[in-house]
Amino acid sequence: MTGIRSCPLSKHMPPAHPFDFDAMADDADADKLKEECGIFGVIGLTDAANFVALGLHALQHRGQEAGGIVCHAPEQGFNSARRFGYVRDNFTKQSLMETLPGPLSIGHVRYSTAGSKGPTQIRDVQPFFGEFAMGGAAIAHNGNITNANALRRELIERGSIFQSSSDSECIIHLMARSLQRTIPERMEDALRRVEGAFSVVAMTRSKLIGVRDPLGVRPLVLGQVGDGWVLSSETCALDIIGAKFVREVAPGEMVVISEQGVESQFPFRPQKPRFCIFEHVYFSRPDSIIGGRSVYETRRQIGVELAREAPVDADIVCPVPDSGTPAAIGYSQESGIPYAMGIIRNQYMGRTFIEPTEQIRNMGVRLKLNVNRALIQGKRVILVDDSVVRGTTSRKIKEMILDAGAAEVHFRIASPPTAWPCFYGVDTPQREKLLAATMSEDEMRDHLQVDSLRFVSLDGLYRAVGEASGRKADCPQYCDACFSGEYPVAPSDMIEQGFEIKAAE
Amino acid sequence: MTGIRSCPLSKHMPPAHPFDFDAMADDADADKLKEECGIFGVIGLTDAANFVALGLHALQHRGQEAGGIVCHAPEQGFNSARRFGYVRDNFTKQSLMETLPGPLSIGHVRYSTAGSKGPTQIRDVQPFFGEFAMGGAAIAHNGNITNANALRRELIERGSIFQSSSDSECIIHLMARSLQRTIPERMEDALRRVEGAFSVVAMTRSKLIGVRDPLGVRPLVLGQVGDGWVLSSETCALDIIGAKFVREVAPGEMVVISEQGVESQFPFRPQKPRFCIFEHVYFSRPDSIIGGRSVYETRRQIGVELAREAPVDADIVCPVPDSGTPAAIGYSQESGIPYAMGIIRNQYMGRTFIEPTEQIRNMGVRLKLNVNRALIQGKRVILVDDSVVRGTTSRKIKEMILDAGAAEVHFRIASPPTAWPCFYGVDTPQREKLLAATMSEDEMRDHLQVDSLRFVSLDGLYRAVGEASGRKADCPQYCDACFSGEYPVAPSDMIEQGFEIKAAE
Amino acid sequence: MTGIRSCPLSKHMPPAHPFDFDAMADDADADKLKEECGIFGVIGLTDAANFVALGLHALQHRGQEAGGIVCHAPEQGFNSARRFGYVRDNFTKQSLMETLPGPLSIGHVRYSTAGSKGPTQIRDVQPFFGEFAMGGAAIAHNGNITNANALRRELIERGSIFQSSSDSECIIHLMARSLQRTIPERMEDALRRVEGAFSVVAMTRSKLIGVRDPLGVRPLVLGQVGDGWVLSSETCALDIIGAKFVREVAPGEMVVISEQGVESQFPFRPQKPRFCIFEHVYFSRPDSIIGGRSVYETRRQIGVELAREAPVDADIVCPVPDSGTPAAIGYSQESGIPYAMGIIRNQYMGRTFIEPTEQIRNMGVRLKLNVNRALIQGKRVILVDDSVVRGTTSRKIKEMILDAGAAEVHFRIASPPTAWPCFYGVDTPQREKLLAATMSEDEMRDHLQVDSLRFVSLDGLYRAVGEASGRKADCPQYCDACFSGEYPVAPSDMIEQGFEIKAAE
Amino acid sequence: MTGIRSCPLSKHMPPAHPFDFDAMADDADADKLKEECGIFGVIGLTDAANFVALGLHALQHRGQEAGGIVCHAPEQGFNSARRFGYVRDNFTKQSLMETLPGPLSIGHVRYSTAGSKGPTQIRDVQPFFGEFAMGGAAIAHNGNITNANALRRELIERGSIFQSSSDSECIIHLMARSLQRTIPERMEDALRRVEGAFSVVAMTRSKLIGVRDPLGVRPLVLGQVGDGWVLSSETCALDIIGAKFVREVAPGEMVVISEQGVESQFPFRPQKPRFCIFEHVYFSRPDSIIGGRSVYETRRQIGVELAREAPVDADIVCPVPDSGTPAAIGYSQESGIPYAMGIIRNQYMGRTFIEPTEQIRNMGVRLKLNVNRALIQGKRVILVDDSVVRGTTSRKIKEMILDAGAAEVHFRIASPPTAWPCFYGVDTPQREKLLAATMSEDEMRDHLQVDSLRFVSLDGLYRAVGEASGRKADCPQYCDACFSGEYPVAPSDMIEQGFEIKAAE
Repeated sequence: MTGIRSCPLSKHMPPAHPFDFDAMADDADADKLKEECGIFGVIGLTDAANFVALGLHALQHRGQEAGGIVCHAPEQGFNSARRFGYVRDNFTKQSLMETLPGPLSIGHVRYSTAGSKGPTQIRDVQPFFGEFAMGGAAIAHNGNITNANALRRELIERGSIFQSSSDSECIIHLMARSLQRTIPERMEDALRRVEGAFSVVAMTRSKLIGVRDPLGVRPLVLGQVGDGWVLSSETCALDIIGAKFVREVAPGEMVVISEQGVESQFPFRPQKPRFCIFEHVYFSRPDSIIGGRSVYETRRQIGVELAREAPVDADIVCPVPDSGTPAAIGYSQESGIPYAMGIIRNQYMGRTFIEPTEQIRNMGVRLKLNVNRALIQGKRVILVDDSVVRGTTSRKIKEMILDAGAAEVHFRIASPPTAWPCFYGVDTPQREKLLAATMSEDEMRDHLQVDSLRFVSLDGLYRAVGEASGRKADCPQYCDACFSGEYPVAPSDMIEQGFEIKAAE
Repeated sequence: MTGIRSCPLSKHMPPAHPFDFDAMADDADADKLKEECGIFGVIGLTDAANFVALGLHALQHRGQEAGGIVCHAPEQGFNSARRFGYVRDNFTKQSLMETLPGPLSIGHVRYSTAGSKGPTQIRDVQPFFGEFAMGGAAIAHNGNITNANALRRELIERGSIFQSSSDSECIIHLMARSLQRTIPERMEDALRRVEGAFSVVAMTRSKLIGVRDPLGVRPLVLGQVGDGWVLSSETCALDIIGAKFVREVAPGEMVVISEQGVESQFPFRPQKPRFCIFEHVYFSRPDSIIGGRSVYETRRQIGVELAREAPVDADIVCPVPDSGTPAAIGYSQESGIPYAMGIIRNQYMGRTFIEPTEQIRNMGVRLKLNVNRALIQGKRVILVDDSVVRGTTSRKIKEMILDAGAAEVHFRIASPPTAWPCFYGVDTPQREKLLAATMSEDEMRDHLQVDSLRFVSLDGLYRAVGEASGRKADCPQYCDACFSGEYPVAPSDMIEQGFEIKAAE
Repeated sequence: MTGIRSCPLSKHMPPAHPFDFDAMADDADADKLKEECGIFGVIGLTDAANFVALGLHALQHRGQEAGGIVCHAPEQGFNSARRFGYVRDNFTKQSLMETLPGPLSIGHVRYSTAGSKGPTQIRDVQPFFGEFAMGGAAIAHNGNITNANALRRELIERGSIFQSSSDSECIIHLMARSLQRTIPERMEDALRRVEGAFSVVAMTRSKLIGVRDPLGVRPLVLGQVGDGWVLSSETCALDIIGAKFVREVAPGEMVVISEQGVESQFPFRPQKPRFCIFEHVYFSRPDSIIGGRSVYETRRQIGVELAREAPVDADIVCPVPDSGTPAAIGYSQESGIPYAMGIIRNQYMGRTFIEPTEQIRNMGVRLKLNVNRALIQGKRVILVDDSVVRGTTSRKIKEMILDAGAAEVHFRIASPPTAWPCFYGVDTPQREKLLAATMSEDEMRDHLQVDSLRFVSLDGLYRAVGEASGRKADCPQYCDACFSGEYPVAPSDMIEQGFEIKAAE
Repeated sequence: MTGIRSCPLSKHMPPAHPFDFDAMADDADADKLKEECGIFGVIGLTDAANFVALGLHALQHRGQEAGGIVCHAPEQGFNSARRFGYVRDNFTKQSLMETLPGPLSIGHVRYSTAGSKGPTQIRDVQPFFGEFAMGGAAIAHNGNITNANALRRELIERGSIFQSSSDSECIIHLMARSLQRTIPERMEDALRRVEGAFSVVAMTRSKLIGVRDPLGVRPLVLGQVGDGWVLSSETCALDIIGAKFVREVAPGEMVVISEQGVESQFPFRPQKPRFCIFEHVYFSRPDSIIGGRSVYETRRQIGVELAREAPVDADIVCPVPDSGTPAAIGYSQESGIPYAMGIIRNQYMGRTFIEPTEQIRNMGVRLKLNVNRALIQGKRVILVDDSVVRGTTSRKIKEMILDAGAAEVHFRIASPPTAWPCFYGVDTPQREKLLAATMSEDEMRDHLQVDSLRFVSLDGLYRAVGEASGRKADCPQYCDACFSGEYPVAPSDMIEQGFEIKAAE
């Protein structure tokens, strides 16, 4: 979910704390698309919030800015905690965890804002909670509501008071105003008014609920551990608590889990699924399993496809760490060119160092990445990266490699050119900032001043995710709008603000 | 305003921060009634929030738990900050104050919870803010809404989502749902649904608004400084910013202050005023002026009345510091018995020391008050205190004085027996905890084991506040429910919960 | 003890933490002499550090900047904690106090720096600790070593490494280098090299030690509680833990307290005592007892002397709170002019509010003191204060009183003119900043623009402290150097730096 | 350097802050030897401390517990800051860095204590500073003084007062007591009394000094950037500030760098160098260059040697991340068995999650490492790790791999069995805790319950670091005491405490 960018309403309440957002701008990772949330829920385990904390830690790559947990215990009722920063720095303190009792809990991690959007406030941190006549409910949302501005305007006119700048808050207000009598019914009611992509984990006093939008754009899986049930964005968060993977929640499915077990419903009009293909490319963790496939293996396979589509004569294949590593291994194995760690990542980074003075900035400080100089010297180097967004990092890396004495630099990118923004829960720059939106592959190569630059083809990518015959142009198996510009749901808020989507070809 | 004590709804969101509320329990002051809020607003001064911080500092005695400020600037819109702790510790940091720009600002200080109520969360800290279709508004409320439970239930049923456990939040939701078109009109609309006592300071993008309930239970004054206007709970907060006292906002009046000046309206059905007489006795600062009278002088005069009504042969008159001081001076002057500081208050207290071990506790630690032993030894001592609530502190003080070798101890209390709880914005214990609710004056004397104990009469108190002929029994000039049990507004939430108010005599 | 002001050595290690010293500058109290330390020690009580924390809290008026505690337990050895800020904010946390076990503990509170001296570092916070061949020792020092610069230079030349900028650290280094075999003997050895004023509380693994310099300039008292013994700067700190006052440690005495009880020695050449008379005037708490006399009563008696020496026709006598209060009561009682609280002190001050903008500063903000306007109006007012240092506060108070409509303002000061700096552990401005160093009483009156200004005479002050025949000019009973310029110990560091002491008359 | 483990002196001052050391215990990394320090110094660059901060960040792998910086500016003199935690979290704040001005600065990062030693205090954090008669000096030490206990005892007997529990503090006290006249001469004087391993970076007001012990056990390199000179533990920290690598400081060399340039001296009796071979195996960063060789390449070569010495038939070669990665690549390339990332490291770890409940602990939580389940299933897996210390982590990893369905597990270790503790600046467990101290390779294999376990031979390791003919048994080219038990310097403190070193064979 995203903040409302160009909402015409008056400016909302500012952050209640002196958080240094500049300190969070992360140089090398700034040039990536950012998954905007991870969600996790548990029912039926003693001290469920402890498990949620572990699950969120395993999903930290999906959101580093902040995290929140809500839980319910029969005697203590609903309790919650929201914190800026990493899960490991907040939700590991016994003094805090003791305030989160009960067998039912959900949680959320949130992306790190980058660039132009206003700072997040602690009020924006999910899960959101609402007290209804029939009791309280909390929701955690991964995705983005593409008609949030219109919904917000309508709700305010009817007298709802918004507490955050988050689009996800619309859901809880829609639920509050629903005429239905149970919370799951109100949730259906609310989600039918919502456009866009959503995977939602919610809870009442006695139920854990999971929902995926009809296209199934964002992931959501079901697991089981002991007597308890788990909902999670990815399987890697099942592993951390020793839970067994049961199945994916299906696109358009709502699961309601209580003491009586798991009930499944399909409240929305059925549609052909369009899972986000970029989850395979970058967002998900390599040790997660999506659609029965290891994400690591898919990425290695992209490298294999890339070696077939775009071979080049060279001495070593180096990944841009860490996201390019599996594809580089695949490229090396397919091409027979030795794999080598030419670039070393400083494991103590995470958030960027503030460069303290102009003097230092001009010296070309390398805070996060360093070249393995003795290895690179005189070599023809193939660099494998997962994607190119603005191209700023690619350019810096190329310079580092050349400074270290490389004879040639060849970029191989494990995804097609990213030419369109995502409106379904990913933080992308405006279209004109995307390198591929304004340049051809050759222009990009010249812009980056490298010896060669090649992207995997869209068909190659589809083959790597298991679609042997590639992309079905009339009916794509995935949401690939960031590559193709074909948006499966019209982003109505953005269109209202003047965004022009690609005409159907 | 108070939290909802026995609200049948499910438990609300807990505090989002590890604040140590035990550390705030203040032993010696725990046995006082507590004013529950101070409010302050400024329009027409550069960096208005700075003035609000100063005003709230001067009103800190009305609420020590937390404070909040909202402001508005044409370009930056609404901004806010809420903090636990003293104004001087929070709203003095330049880094914070710079985030609060603009010429229009309101603020609120909140009482320190004591005893059984749940902990406050930062969400409970006022001012409350709401975004309406015609723009944002913020309100700060001093008083208590006596039908808050019923209102809250109704609003939740209609789909409002409460963010705090505060009764005051009802006002902003009522405003959000009003059919009126301007914010001042919506505020009238909302306040007409509200029962109880309220002084409110509110703001829109361009207006500062002040309202007092028709009985005028809680104070509110209007001041002027340079080109700006000020609303404040007390005049002492006008002094701190060098503002001139203009007049009190009248009971039932709404003032709307904008660039065009001050407009006055009387939107409520007129009633005979019933200002809280306890503001004279204890709540207000001695350097404030109420109804044209110095609070200090009124208190000194209570001491004079007390000396006339309850003389006793003794060697020295000692105040229980600091609230008994003016009355002790009056008692000394009227009786001719020398005034002396027999009890010294540690000025570095403020919040209680945690007594670390049983051993220390048993040694009779005197953290806040110490006896001036050399002075007390062998003397017959008159102790003047402002009130007796539970009697716990009175008992400890008596023991300290006797330990120091006093020959006799005579208590003189500068208010009538406090026998009834207040429901209009004061934190009082349950009725059965009030010493005077269950004992006669003689029984209290025996209970406290002092040589004599006398309270000023209700008529004596009325004389001291300037009503030469005392209290008009059929139509009291003040709200004195805490002494008389005659409640000017029926406390409907409490009645619903089974509280029995005194039958009319 | 003080930092070395003009030490020619290179600048020492800076503060290790971002403490905001500006925030500590305290406007109204800035114009007072400042006692620089309070010391406290306990032996023979379980969890002795808890008692030390309470004792230091009661001595907080002697030093507000920082506090430290060292303790020893047979199994855990020596432990310590040092903190900036008030005792009540630091040494009340159970988590901290649990790290300070054992039956033997000493502590120290330190003054708040004001003005030109560099910031304090946590390393400057006492007690100081040293590991010697025969075991560890810790010391806490109240006073000032007037040959500290020379000692420090000598010790550094011999290879000692200083960790703080404090003069008191010399004592522990002198002890480390002593040839004596026991710690008490080494302490004697060290203190014989030290010039100036000192009261010291020290501890080894099994002994609590107290020493006063031969003149007995700074106070030190012995108390008893249960099976334990206590050393304290003042008796008020005995009261807080329920300890019985036993006696004052005599000038030049060293007491060594162990399981075997209290041993007394007099290791220094005997001299006529010269206790600091300003302890009576201002430093000590009014509920302390010095030389068998209540400090409160002495101050009241100064007011009586002042009324006799400097009567004036007026309507009310007002104290400048809080330090002028006892003398104002005395003045009122002797003169028959009514006592009134014309100036009210904001009890939520403590540290100064940062005045955020020029605009506010120019408005004459009154953060700490406010006038009781309705009381002052049209009155002839006698203001009683304890002392005049720079005169800056006196001037502001006079203006406040006149603004409020006073007809006349008469200042009466409960001490003689402060014309000389103190070098024995008090923070005084440089001589030229002392109003009385450059002006006569009449000139000061004109400078302050008041109707009259009178100081109590030196003889009057001596009478009030019990010397019925006043000051013995040839052999004064007290150290009154700040009034008389007659220094009982030559301040050798200062003389080396060019300070000229008054020639003997 | 290390704390004094069994020092017979009384326990020293405890930490002055509530740092949670439990939170630092790092599960997966707990089973590694720990390099104990990184040192860095800069002269001749504006705001040198900024460069030191960057350098320390690049050396963070050598010490994660705490860091300190001292600097000197002509006008501001010496300044310093010490902090617990990562460099990136402390020395990136502008407010702090502004307090560290000047063109000359040194810094130190310190290891994370693990296990039995007492907690570190902020006083233990280097650099250490001493004020001498000729001015101040600061030192930062990497290594361990093996006669520190004896030195400390002697210095205390002479009257030195130690402020820390660090062995390195001896150096500054020896300097303070030296009879020599310049600081570099005093440093020589001091270091001649010191036994053990040391690389030292020191500074005076105008000089930057670097020294390595005669054996050159710990690394130290010299770099140049612009007009400035740099000393660093490793070359990777030169890269981060864009400095050029000039040369290694030679074993037994002292370099004194001032405005006049670099002077070199050899103050110690010459010895045959014995550089720590474990720096190649694990301590140094893979992108550093030691003795002209890439550390990454050396480690890859160890993998090649291992594949030759200990081949096995298998399906995939997986590194134990991250330290086993280069050797795994080498093993794969030499053996032809595909390289694969079978274990994924959570990049948001760093410090361990506190496992909140017994329940969770028993579920086998995998906080730092997770298996790539889909990849491992049914495979014969070769796991390559850098070393085996206690064997605890190896055992857990084996279980994870088997749980995921591996058919066989073969461990290959890129160093010989670690059978002896290090006394030269590395945190090793007591000898009996080292798995290889009590078991043969076969016993270890059975203990770990793996299909095979093989270590590279000592000769193989020597070949990988470039000694083509392997280890010279009579005169080893490196310090390999941890593998061979042949200590190049007798660890006299440890021998005094009863440690038996291996008899010469």
